[in-house]
Amino acid sequence: MERSPHMTSQEFRNAGKRLIDWLADYYDQVEQYPVFAQVAPDQIRASLPQEPPQSQTDFAQILDAVDSKIMPGITHWQSPNFFAYFPANSSGPSVLGDLLSSGLGVQGMLWATSPACTEVEMLVLDWLVKMLGLPPAFLSNGKGGGVIQDSASSSSLCAILAARERATGFRSNEYGCREELVAYTSTQAHSSVEKDIKVAGIGSRNLRLIDVDANFAMRPESLEKAIAEDKRTGKLPFLVCATTGTTSSLAFDPLEAIGGICKKHNLWLHVDAAMAGTAALCPEFRHIHQGLESANSYCFDAHKWMFTNFDCSCFYVADRETLTRSLDVLPEYLRNQASGPGVAFEYRHWHVPLGRRFRALKLWFVIHHYGVEGLQFLVRRHVEIAQTFSKWVQGDSRFELMAPAPLNLICFRLKASDELNEELLRRLNCSGRLYLSHTRLNGKYTIRFCVAQTNTELPHVQRAWKTICDQADALLSARPA
Amino acid sequence: MERSPHMTSQEFRNAGKRLIDWLADYYDQVEQYPVFAQVAPDQIRASLPQEPPQSQTDFAQILDAVDSKIMPGITHWQSPNFFAYFPANSSGPSVLGDLLSSGLGVQGMLWATSPACTEVEMLVLDWLVKMLGLPPAFLSNGKGGGVIQDSASSSSLCAILAARERATGFRSNEYGCREELVAYTSTQAHSSVEKDIKVAGIGSRNLRLIDVDANFAMRPESLEKAIAEDKRTGKLPFLVCATTGTTSSLAFDPLEAIGGICKKHNLWLHVDAAMAGTAALCPEFRHIHQGLESANSYCFDAHKWMFTNFDCSCFYVADRETLTRSLDVLPEYLRNQASGPGVAFEYRHWHVPLGRRFRALKLWFVIHHYGVEGLQFLVRRHVEIAQTFSKWVQGDSRFELMAPAPLNLICFRLKASDELNEELLRRLNCSGRLYLSHTRLNGKYTIRFCVAQTNTELPHVQRAWKTICDQADALLSARPA
Repeated sequence: MERSPHMTSQEFRNAGKRLIDWLADYYDQVEQYPVFAQVAPDQIRASLPQEPPQSQTDFAQILDAVDSKIMPGITHWQSPNFFAYFPANSSGPSVLGDLLSSGLGVQGMLWATSPACTEVEMLVLDWLVKMLGLPPAFLSNGKGGGVIQDSASSSSLCAILAARERATGFRSNEYGCREELVAYTSTQAHSSVEKDIKVAGIGSRNLRLIDVDANFAMRPESLEKAIAEDKRTGKLPFLVCATTGTTSSLAFDPLEAIGGICKKHNLWLHVDAAMAGTAALCPEFRHIHQGLESANSYCFDAHKWMFTNFDCSCFYVADRETLTRSLDVLPEYLRNQASGPGVAFEYRHWHVPLGRRFRALKLWFVIHHYGVEGLQFLVRRHVEIAQTFSKWVQGDSRFELMAPAPLNLICFRLKASDELNEELLRRLNCSGRLYLSHTRLNGKYTIRFCVAQTNTELPHVQRAWKTICDQADALLSARPA
Repeated sequence: MERSPHMTSQEFRNAGKRLIDWLADYYDQVEQYPVFAQVAPDQIRASLPQEPPQSQTDFAQILDAVDSKIMPGITHWQSPNFFAYFPANSSGPSVLGDLLSSGLGVQGMLWATSPACTEVEMLVLDWLVKMLGLPPAFLSNGKGGGVIQDSASSSSLCAILAARERATGFRSNEYGCREELVAYTSTQAHSSVEKDIKVAGIGSRNLRLIDVDANFAMRPESLEKAIAEDKRTGKLPFLVCATTGTTSSLAFDPLEAIGGICKKHNLWLHVDAAMAGTAALCPEFRHIHQGLESANSYCFDAHKWMFTNFDCSCFYVADRETLTRSLDVLPEYLRNQASGPGVAFEYRHWHVPLGRRFRALKLWFVIHHYGVEGLQFLVRRHVEIAQTFSKWVQGDSRFELMAPAPLNLICFRLKASDELNEELLRRLNCSGRLYLSHTRLNGKYTIRFCVAQTNTELPHVQRAWKTICDQADALLSARPA
């Protein structure tokens, strides 16, 4: 090889600036793409070379292939016409904070391997406690603290592991999970709770799905009854996972009542506020966290509604020692002068992976760029727009609301068969003009409309509503009388 | 708020280009920083505002704070004078591929939520099977396939979970981990195996640490004996985790012999080649994978030695159905037309998190930029430089090699007390001129010197050796006679 194959810093400058322009152009034009990728399975892969390139490729050619081969297979999560699932919204400052993290390429696996990576994360997660009005027990200056995980799934796994070890006096870690542990969550909780319960060796049959009220919120009296029954049969109840804003319909479990039950029976209370937590930036929405003082752990995803790109799940514990004791191992090659107890947070004991990137940088950039006021302004606007949409649905006799809609998620359907609603959703998504998803509430096929994409404004929602009405008209008029 | 607090696309262009220049300048000047951050615990955090900013901050001010407040707390993993731990090397094309991923902000949690995210990952992981000469069973066109995980810790967790479910007929997932499962790894294996065994509810007492030979490689006869003993006492051996390049000394477990034992006793064989796997890009180093045909799963970290920034652990299974059946849950809100069996890979069943970013893009950029030939050239040069360093150590009577050094990691020490070696390491790292780490081999404090940082060339290693010799001279001459 005649010259080094590395990209020189000058080449990096040129290619990097070209990519920044490419992204800015993409943001300017994102509404011109169909939101939902219009490709068949395997179409993208089949269009690409099946063998790896042997020699070097110019950056311009790499970017050309992205344009012509990869972009057709992209579903545009950053389009303001994206209303599906939960958002994974992002923003300029977040993308740039993440670029700085990639560019510095530090490993925060130990405090010593990049002190700023640990300390900025501690600081920013403390800021968020104050910004969301979370219980002070989650601050790092007492016995608690926060950490960034990749996802709410991993956050709840860590909560379950800490709760498992607490309930078994740390014997599960040593001898395996032998006790008859039982966990509780509602029928509306995220599927990751079941997955985590399996991962932790507890078994899905030992997860009780507690029934919900008319608003899809967990019934505390059913929880109490289930715990009593399990205790009577010699089981060991150890954890309740409550949800602040369920995936299906954004229902809010009654934290105060659940917390009281957990205290009484000495159960770990984990609260999952994956998307909705961000609403608490605004004091007027903080009621969603009422009763959170009883929680042993809590998580919300800044990568859902807080303009921070994935991954950035913020996980808090009130007693960090139980968590870190559940996850620590200390081999010789990781020992260092700062690894003694209490000297600095060692975040590798806060999650499964050892390696960790400097994810706090993107939060640092986002919070500075917007300021608390800017974030509040945007969250308020999203809620306001969603409430307007909700009124339109309620004012149209062809449709019905399927769940309370206090924030930014509207669950609705045509007053018609499941099949017709499914066909409506299919046509809407195939139009490429917007992207919606569905769930099932009280057994009925239900369309979900979530307003939280960074650039969604009222006109996008107006156009979406018109598209929905037009498609509904077409479907209903074609129906045999 | 008078105007939208969002960054406009023009502001993004300006700020992004400024940050690209900042990074290019950083790469140009990285050797001027002390490699190892010279700060006391809490120094960085204490220097930052304890309260979150209420109003907006200019991008220029954000970048100024990075310079003045955060950079002093950075340990420079991208310095060519970084020889500690395992590398987390990166490169221009990787950083830009990752920027594209952040900028597009797609969620690959389902095939349908961004088909390219799933399909490019399948393709690139197939390429890597060919590039490293891995067994064809790991290709996606048969029963196997590869996926990107965040770290080798998470890869081995998934291997353990799949093995656990296979051994218990998928009953652990349902009823909890009730069987007397036993796993095996060597005394030299990475600590994450023990962590994962705890997470999976198996218990660290059910992990046997098999002794090693003079080269720190697992003794197959000891493994065989341990399995027989466990079977005799009614235990259920289910998994062996072998290592191709241990963390302490880059030892290679004998895969052929271990594979034979696993076949005989029907145990799952997971092979962890976290750093060393990349060496197999060069045909002359492929012997490190001899016997890999028997493995049920395998992982190597492209984020260690393959110029791809964290996180990018490439995890392969020969039988993907066992893995996905161990990790799948399918709630209504994730159902879609492509979610039927066999239509497309659904990577959320390949790991713990549900959400996933488009990590294959950085691999796509790296492999295209360098080409297979460029990557081979760089790996060969790293090994060559490390071998030169090894000869210097062997030619100096004050030092001794502590383990075989066939690739790019040299384990050595002063022929002196542990205390003196510890002091030597402390002084070297505090000099800021290079960064090394340590381990303990045969009970002795040992210095590790790893050559794999992207920009490390012979002159860096020459200077490092001179610094080591100078410090050794100073230490040895000050010692009481």
